[in-house]
This record gives sequence, structure tokens and C-alpha cells, in this order.
Amino acid sequence: MLATVDLGSNSFRLQISRLVDDQLYTLDALKDTVRLGAGLGSDKVLDTDTQERALACLARFGERLRGFAPGQVRVVGTNTLRVAKNAPAFIERAEALLGFPIEIIAGREEARLIYLGAAHSLPATRERRLVVDIGGGSTEFIIGSQYRALVTESLPLGCVSFSLRFFPDGKLGKSQFRDATLAARNEIQRIRQSFRPEEWQLAVGTSGTARSLRDILEINDYTSADITLEGMTQLRQEMLRRGHVKNVVLNGLKADRAPVLPGGLAIMIGIFEELGVSKMTVAEGALRDGVLYDLLGRQREHDMRETTVSQFCRRYHVDAEQTKRVTWLAESLFRKVCGEDLDQDWLKLLIWGARLHEIGLSIAHTAYHKHSAYILQYADMPGFSKREQNSLGQIVLGHRGDMGKILPYVDDQTLWRAIVSLRIAVLFYRSRNEVALPPALDLKPHARGFALTVDSGWLGANPLTASAIRQEVSQWKNIGYLLELQQV
Amino acid sequence: MLATVDLGSNSFRLQISRLVDDQLYTLDALKDTVRLGAGLGSDKVLDTDTQERALACLARFGERLRGFAPGQVRVVGTNTLRVAKNAPAFIERAEALLGFPIEIIAGREEARLIYLGAAHSLPATRERRLVVDIGGGSTEFIIGSQYRALVTESLPLGCVSFSLRFFPDGKLGKSQFRDATLAARNEIQRIRQSFRPEEWQLAVGTSGTARSLRDILEINDYTSADITLEGMTQLRQEMLRRGHVKNVVLNGLKADRAPVLPGGLAIMIGIFEELGVSKMTVAEGALRDGVLYDLLGRQREHDMRETTVSQFCRRYHVDAEQTKRVTWLAESLFRKVCGEDLDQDWLKLLIWGARLHEIGLSIAHTAYHKHSAYILQYADMPGFSKREQNSLGQIVLGHRGDMGKILPYVDDQTLWRAIVSLRIAVLFYRSRNEVALPPALDLKPHARGFALTVDSGWLGANPLTASAIRQEVSQWKNIGYLLELQQV
Repeated sequence: MLATVDLGSNSFRLQISRLVDDQLYTLDALKDTVRLGAGLGSDKVLDTDTQERALACLARFGERLRGFAPGQVRVVGTNTLRVAKNAPAFIERAEALLGFPIEIIAGREEARLIYLGAAHSLPATRERRLVVDIGGGSTEFIIGSQYRALVTESLPLGCVSFSLRFFPDGKLGKSQFRDATLAARNEIQRIRQSFRPEEWQLAVGTSGTARSLRDILEINDYTSADITLEGMTQLRQEMLRRGHVKNVVLNGLKADRAPVLPGGLAIMIGIFEELGVSKMTVAEGALRDGVLYDLLGRQREHDMRETTVSQFCRRYHVDAEQTKRVTWLAESLFRKVCGEDLDQDWLKLLIWGARLHEIGLSIAHTAYHKHSAYILQYADMPGFSKREQNSLGQIVLGHRGDMGKILPYVDDQTLWRAIVSLRIAVLFYRSRNEVALPPALDLKPHARGFALTVDSGWLGANPLTASAIRQEVSQWKNIGYLLELQQV
Repeated sequence: MLATVDLGSNSFRLQISRLVDDQLYTLDALKDTVRLGAGLGSDKVLDTDTQERALACLARFGERLRGFAPGQVRVVGTNTLRVAKNAPAFIERAEALLGFPIEIIAGREEARLIYLGAAHSLPATRERRLVVDIGGGSTEFIIGSQYRALVTESLPLGCVSFSLRFFPDGKLGKSQFRDATLAARNEIQRIRQSFRPEEWQLAVGTSGTARSLRDILEINDYTSADITLEGMTQLRQEMLRRGHVKNVVLNGLKADRAPVLPGGLAIMIGIFEELGVSKMTVAEGALRDGVLYDLLGRQREHDMRETTVSQFCRRYHVDAEQTKRVTWLAESLFRKVCGEDLDQDWLKLLIWGARLHEIGLSIAHTAYHKHSAYILQYADMPGFSKREQNSLGQIVLGHRGDMGKILPYVDDQTLWRAIVSLRIAVLFYRSRNEVALPPALDLKPHARGFALTVDSGWLGANPLTASAIRQEVSQWKNIGYLLELQQV
């Protein structure tokens, strides 16, 4: 059994699935139209009422998830939680109620997962598909083939945000629709070159907006099947005739969808016009399915994060020999210092951090650890959540130089263990050559820090490293930690 | 006539040269052992006494430079001004006294210029040379061939800083020399792989420390010629015998060199030991000569900055077609808005900024303008001063999105003109395609900002760009500027 929670800008969804022969079957699904995105003011602060509504929903979800193990559950947050300035405080409360950590995922990572979910619900054909997912706060665009996303984009177009911005009082007029569609096209124009009709053969919509449009167009006979521009034009005419959202009661339109239909329709028309789409089918799979298939991949040794780290090593021309040496020693020291507390997730992060610690050299040699951390913080890293990227950045930032500046931000003891392991590994291989390591080399937790054991004979024969270790001891002292050198 | 001022950590030097057939001949040279690096406390703040001494020297230099045109003079600052926290305030006063702007150059750029200076004073042979320049605050290492630096590094090892740190009371003991040499080797170890003996055929020292060591070793018969480890070991013995700096009076040693000799000697011994140098010749050319030859190159259409921009476009896989379109339009708008005020230096910066504005896409699509600016601020960019990199970064940072955050940092009106030109160029080519531009397109300065002229018929036929221009007008309004759209 696997569970996923999708904290979207329109609705929160909990899905519980059972795995049978590599295929997931949904056992239970909960949905709550929290409309988180509507609580976001122009100051990008999430208001209190919306937070309370969201937290009440998460308390219910948390109850349903009781008894699940951490490895069985993944909770992802998208656009509203990406942009809200007070998201960290909200997330802390939300995690307490849910009982599981929340991962905020970047727009492109969301796009990749949406494609993965959609691909599993589509026939296994080989054509290139354009997949479009209009969410509450952002719209994801993907070109993919079979199970692989090839081009991913995320634009700030949402059915909740657009309905609020262009139809604030519910009035449905020509100028409102025109402005909304123009604003959508303005954004889509930026990505038009990569998504033009020559690049794909089949257009697929996921998300509630697409399903709702398909249902309305089909049931009301605005179109024979699928979503078309002609059908949507007829729907818009009908909505203009009604004049106000509260009068829009249509066959196929669920009541909770009506308030966000104008924004969603305007965006979809913009997509059709700007990308030259003539018709779009609808797939059932979406983000929450993608999240589950991704989780499944990790358990089956197809971890997307592993692929990303390897790609980054190539892209940033990492020195493979040096990285291999440092990664090996850092892992070995981390295992020693953690002992029985070894956390497999942290071990992975330490290994990835070690493999990527020199990518910043591509920008400049001076302060390269800061550049490495900058890239890890901001780059699109398929498979990684924002929190994981953040931890990788901290490991890498701490691997060298003065640690005073990261001190306030690193409070996790395991993160300190990862940092000390990588620092010492880099120190021993500073000459970028094979080195005969001290036979007794060991790293252990210690009263107020760590104890490093090195053979005294080895230190005598390696005065440069010995002096570097003494410097390292004083670096830790400066930030109030004890790194004790024990000679044997 | 060309003049250069080198604000080093040990001495300030003014050199005036005349150009005859591509060769520079020194007409006049002033030197003042300001020892700027000695005024830098452990808090990285330059003390008042040292600042006053430095400013008095610059007042004298300023007098000598009266009558020189801006294009004839280049003033460069190195390590101490790179690291001093109060450098900006000092530089402002220094520029007022000198009458010319001061460019702070990065360590690797300093290395490139040192090599350029040294290469012009060496025979035009083809071997690979190791050039080492021990300065007051940093040591530069270069491998180069003919006039081209191939590998450049800068390490924080200086004869002033090391003499202060390891020989603070002037006492010359075995342990002081051992600690100083070990600390130097610890730093040099990092770069050893790139500078090992297989990588070069001839070792050359530039800087006062190298010249002083050569003179002492030769005159006192510690060595037959050049600098050798044996000779330096004898010199160290002699200094240990004297026991204190004040007793070190040696043939070939100038009085003002004596206080910084212990640190310089310890660093040079560290270099010989760590890089496997057996002997080193001394070349006369140095940073100030390199600065002059670089200035000369710019005037002769061999501008190193042009080469760097082209390399960056390749390294960061810039979309050549799009960049060409945007650069062309940005230049054209900048020429219009500047009119007769057109400044050639700013025109170059605008063109380079336009060519590089998308390099941040290599990190991530989201907020790529910030990543472009980050790279431009921190990357090693041969030929560019820190100030120029800073201006490029501001043009690029301002080319997109909200300008509120850069507002406090951009006070130069020409910089605003560069920003508005690039923004509008990017806006017109947002579709990344050829576009038939409005025939009347024009940009002019205006009471509280700028006036943009566009044909009204063109706006009607291009509603997407028209709406983007309206958005742009409101972006400028948000920061208190007026961008007026004039339709004709």
C-alpha cells in the first residue's frame, strides 16, 4: 500500500493505492476543494482563514494515514506553497497534523511527475505527446514519449488565480475573457518555440479543468468528442449569455468547479490559440499518480535522482577521479560516525553531495563551494524536492571554508555529520591524488562534536595533512564545536 | 603616452610609457612602499593610518597624471582592495585624488595580466613557462606560452601578510620559518596537479620578492645564477644566524624590502618544494606592464573582453539566433535613447550584456535573469574588471521582471538607458522568432523616464506585444519611472 497527498492550489487530494504486478490500483481517494490559491493575497501571504481550512483538511487526511510507515507516504506541495512567503510556518503546522513531511516540488519537477502519471494511463504508443495540466496556480506543459518527459515547462497560469484576477466579481463579459486569454497567451508565447505543433502528434489534457471542459462540451453537444476550440467558443458564448458565474449551471459542470471555470476556460483557449492545438483528449492520470510511480521507481532501483546526479556530473565537467576518491571516503566516514543511527536517506544525500561538491568550479575557482551550493539550490533537478536540494546545498556549502555563516541554518545533527564527513574526506585528498590513508582513521560522535582518530606515525610522515587537520580543528572551535584529534 | 597605476598590497606604482611601433618604453616611474596589506586587520578592515598614507601617495600620483585623458590611464587594485571590507569608501576618496577610476581586478585576471607583462619581457620562444608572482597579499601562478596565459591561479599568500602573521615581532627562528612554509605549501597543494613539473619547461619569477632573492643569492654567492632551493636554504641559515629582522643587512637587499623578506622567502621555498621547481629565472615585466599591453590591445581591436564574451556564449550554450536579434535591437534602441550622449564604453557593456543575458538558463529557467547576473558577478572573466562585471550583472538582472530590487543599486542614468533598451528588445522578440518591427519604433529620454514610440496600426495588428508593452509601462510606474507609450 502506498499513499500520496497532493496539496494543490485548487484542491487537496489523498490517494491510497495498492501495488499489484507493477501496476497501482486505487483503494481510496479523498478530495477537498480547499482552494489554497485563493488565500494568496497580492503580497504573496497566505491568509489565516484559508490556512485554517487547509489545516482542518490535513487533520482529516492525517487520521486516514495513521499507521502508514514513512516510506509508504509522499506528500507534495505545488505552486501556492512555492510562492507563499509564509509557507514555511504553514508547512510546519501542516506536517504536525499530517504526521509526514511535505515536499515542495519545483514547477518543472511537477511537470515531470504529471507526465509520468499521465503516461501510465495512456496507451503505450510511441508518438510524441503534448500534455497540459491547468492547475489552480500554475499550468504545466510537457512533451514526452512513452514514459519519459522530454521537455518540461511550468507557467504561472492557474484556474483559481485567473478567475480571481480577471473575473473578481463573477461578472462574465467579453473584455474579461479577452484580457484573461491575452494574459495567458503572453506567458505561453515565451515557450511557443519548444511546443509548436511540429514537436508533437497528440495533445492530452490532465487536471480538473480539462476533464470538466470535456464533460461540458460532450454532454451539451458543443463538440462531438474531445476538447476543441469551436466547442470552447460555444461554451464561452453560453457563459457570456448567462452574464455571471452564479447563473452558470450547465450539464456536466460540477458545482465546485463553476467558480474557477472562467479562468480555466480562458487559459485553455489561450493554449489552443498560441500553441496551434486543434483538439485535445483527456487522460485520467495526474500528479498524484506520477508521485506514486516515482516512489515505486525509487524502490525498484530506478531512482530519477540518481540519473540527475550523473547528468549534473557530466554537464558541469566534474573531475571523475577526484570525486570518486572523495565520495568513497566521505561515505566511509559517514557510516563510521553514524554507526547504528545510519539513516539511508541521509546517506544518499551525503553521497550525492560528495559527487556534486565541485560543480561550482564551472563558475569560478574562488569560493567555488558557494557556487556549487547556488546551483544546487536553484537548478531544475528532476526527482529532487526543494527540501532535498536545500540539504544538498548545505552539505556542499559546508564542505570547505568558514562554517560560521551556515551555522544558524544547520540544526540537524545528521546534517552536521554529513558535513564533517565530507570536509575530512576533501582534506585528506587535497592533493587530488591517491593517498595511503592512516590505517586507524576513524570518526566518532563526541561530547560536543566529533573525535577524529589518526595514527601519530602517519601524521609525522604527512606534515601537510597534519597541519591541515590542526587548522580544521580550529575551524570547528570557531563555531563552538569540538573536533578532537585523537592520535594512536 | 599611456599611464598605469598599480595599487599593490606592498607598494603603489605609477608608470608612464610611450608607445613606439607596438613596443612600450617607460618614460617615468614612481614607487611608494605604502604597504597597504599591513593595514588590514584580522577583521578585514583597512586601518585609518594606512589609508591616510595611501591617499597621500595617490595625491602625488594624481598630480603627475594631470592632463592625461581617461583613455590613456588605467588604475588597478589587487588583493588588499579585493578583501578589505571598507574598500568601497576608500576607493571613492582615492578616485577623487587620482582623478581616474580604480578597477579592482580578480586574482585570476591579475594572473593573466602579470603573464602578459612578463611575456613581453621574455624571449619569444615557444616553451611552456611557469610564472610566479609573489605580491604583498597574494601570489599568482600562471602557465603560459608565448603571449597567452593557459592556466591561472591566485592564492592568498603574500610577503606582507606572511611576514606579519608568522614573524610578528621580527624574530627569525626555525619554527617560524617551518610554520610559514608549511602554511604556504598547504595552499599550494590545492593547485599542485595543474602546475606539476611535467606541465612546464621554464620557471620565471616576477615581483619584488623574486628580484630581491635573485640579487641577494647572486651577490652573496649563495648560488651561481637564478634562484635555487640550495641558495635559499643558505639565505635562511644566514637569517636564522642573525636572529632578528633588524639585524638582516645583506648585500643586494634594499632596506625597504627587509621587513617583508622572511615571509617572501618562506613562500618561495614552499613553492619550490611543493611544485618541484629546481631553479627560477627572473623577468622584469610585471602587472603594470601587462595592464598597459592589455590597454594597447583594446585600442588595436584585440580586446580580451570580446574573446571572453564569445567563449561564455559557447560555454553556456546561448541561443545564437535569438541573442543576435535581441543584441541588434538593444544596440539600436540604446543609440537612439543616448543620441549625442552616446558613451562608447557603455555601448560595449550593453552589447556584451545583451549577448550574455540568457546564460543563466544553464542553471534554471525560473528566474534565469538572476542566475545570469550571479554568473556575471562571480565568474572569472578575463579582461573584465570587477566593476565592469558588476555593471554587466546589473544590466542583465534588470532585463526582465520586477526592477524594484535593483532600484537602490542602479543610480547611473546611462545604466538605466542600457536596461530599458535591453528590456524592450527582449519584449519585441519574446516569440524567439523574426518579427516585422514597427517602422516608427523609437526610444527617447523623457521628463521622468523614457518615451517609446510605436505605430498604432502595428500595435493593433500585434495585440500580444501591445499587451506586453502595457505591462512594461506599469512595471516602470511601480519603481517611480515614466515609460510613456507614444502611438503614431
